[in-house]
Amino acid sequence: MLPYIIYFDYIGVALFAATGALSASRQQLDLMGFFFLATLTGIGGGTIRDLILDVPVFWIANQTYFVVCLATALLVYFTAHLIESRYRILLWLDAVALAVYGVFGAFKSLNITDAPFIAIFMGVVTGTVGGILRDVLTDQPNAVTRKEIYITAALVGAAVYVGLVWVGLPRFESAAIGAVCAFAVRAGTIIFGWTLPPYRGRPGRDI
Amino acid sequence: MLPYIIYFDYIGVALFAATGALSASRQQLDLMGFFFLATLTGIGGGTIRDLILDVPVFWIANQTYFVVCLATALLVYFTAHLIESRYRILLWLDAVALAVYGVFGAFKSLNITDAPFIAIFMGVVTGTVGGILRDVLTDQPNAVTRKEIYITAALVGAAVYVGLVWVGLPRFESAAIGAVCAFAVRAGTIIFGWTLPPYRGRPGRDI
Amino acid sequence: MLPYIIYFDYIGVALFAATGALSASRQQLDLMGFFFLATLTGIGGGTIRDLILDVPVFWIANQTYFVVCLATALLVYFTAHLIESRYRILLWLDAVALAVYGVFGAFKSLNITDAPFIAIFMGVVTGTVGGILRDVLTDQPNAVTRKEIYITAALVGAAVYVGLVWVGLPRFESAAIGAVCAFAVRAGTIIFGWTLPPYRGRPGRDI
Repeated sequence: MLPYIIYFDYIGVALFAATGALSASRQQLDLMGFFFLATLTGIGGGTIRDLILDVPVFWIANQTYFVVCLATALLVYFTAHLIESRYRILLWLDAVALAVYGVFGAFKSLNITDAPFIAIFMGVVTGTVGGILRDVLTDQPNAVTRKEIYITAALVGAAVYVGLVWVGLPRFESAAIGAVCAFAVRAGTIIFGWTLPPYRGRPGRDI
Repeated sequence: MLPYIIYFDYIGVALFAATGALSASRQQLDLMGFFFLATLTGIGGGTIRDLILDVPVFWIANQTYFVVCLATALLVYFTAHLIESRYRILLWLDAVALAVYGVFGAFKSLNITDAPFIAIFMGVVTGTVGGILRDVLTDQPNAVTRKEIYITAALVGAAVYVGLVWVGLPRFESAAIGAVCAFAVRAGTIIFGWTLPPYRGRPGRDI
Repeated sequence: MLPYIIYFDYIGVALFAATGALSASRQQLDLMGFFFLATLTGIGGGTIRDLILDVPVFWIANQTYFVVCLATALLVYFTAHLIESRYRILLWLDAVALAVYGVFGAFKSLNITDAPFIAIFMGVVTGTVGGILRDVLTDQPNAVTRKEIYITAALVGAAVYVGLVWVGLPRFESAAIGAVCAFAVRAGTIIFGWTLPPYRGRPGRDI
């Protein structure tokens, strides 16, 4: 394990936890709702990743992740009213979290399976599942149905990471570049409204 | 394993199965819908708990749990019309199930991990996930979005159990006291409409 | 492992992937939405099955499944406009997938656990969970709430398979007969509108 890349993990968990707490704030939930959504969003993607890879779930052995989620939820609970647009900040934190945590998921999966294709896919899963769980539980449009570039950003980050490691770059540098690329794709989407071409079929009889 | 605490497990599964079947009755599903929702709600929380703790899923080795779920679904299918308010009874059975199964989840997790914090969290997961799956699948408001004290009740039960074991009380007595506390919190919520203070931020520009 | 039964697996995954991609087409998602929904629907049921049975997740060791999902998504993306009614074809592909993949789930589970009851249940899980995930994520009515015979078809297929193996028939023949039975039940439902009798309770005060 490279020493620095662990921060990708903490940062991803903390930022996703913050988006969960902000989602709770937008729906005026109580403090327990903040804790629950922060924790679910923060550790959801990594939990599914670890279950599928059949490795110990990361937050069982290291309780720091919990503390990070709960502290983030508390912080948001007491400061979110200072934010002018909670949706806007949620969107940007989510963009960084997606980039950082997606790349970390690819890093961890590549270490374990040594299979580039699986590592890229697990990066996408790690980066997107927490947010999808958050949105399904709170009945918001999710990453699949929102019709904007989101999953693609996680894919770009994971693919760049795996590609750079493949050509021999050190892992920390590869991860940093991958995360920047993923964030750039997502940021462009938020700012400029980038989209991929949607499917336009001939509308069928009953579609 | 203390001999009596296993009943917490069966009772929790049976009561959650009953709430799943009652949910099916409220939506006029067929008998298969009763079976499916009873089983999902009955074994859902414990399944996630066991997957995360990396122990064999409890109902694979012991098929009694299935029989409990199916028998409960049948019983509800043939008797639910006798109940004046199916929603009311669902609410109360769910309250007992949450209390009993949340404490059992904390008990099992503490036995396996010996980590108090994790045990409390897994108690919450065990007590709430089955009901959340039931509500998401049937498109009802779930424990997170309902804005009433629910997850907190599971937390109180699990925390009381872990706390009492910590100070040296026997496990069966600790579990009984924990379950009574959790039920009391949930019952007070149902009867008196207790709530935790919701978050009230300054409504942002686009929230 | 009997040599031919592996085709049940590929066929089930490919057909479910096609239904995921068709669902994406009906909602005019972009190509990434096709990939995501095809993969989720294609491998979702089998992933839950393998996690619960505590065996390596099938698509980690064998990347062919991915290629199948991605190729299917691409094929649907470029041909779905040729289909007169995308909903109709989705319905029929889903019927075959349910039959084939449910029986395969029962086959794999019986091999692993040697417990007939569990094998039947896991057949139902394998055959239905992918489609349920697809429908929950895209906010469509799911197998539980659609009030038509669906889960029952998977149950029939898995039970026929397990029953025929029990009486001594070879596994491949048992699987083929099980799949035909499951498909017949589902096809009858689509064509003739078969239903099981829905629950009709006395409407309670607040139900």
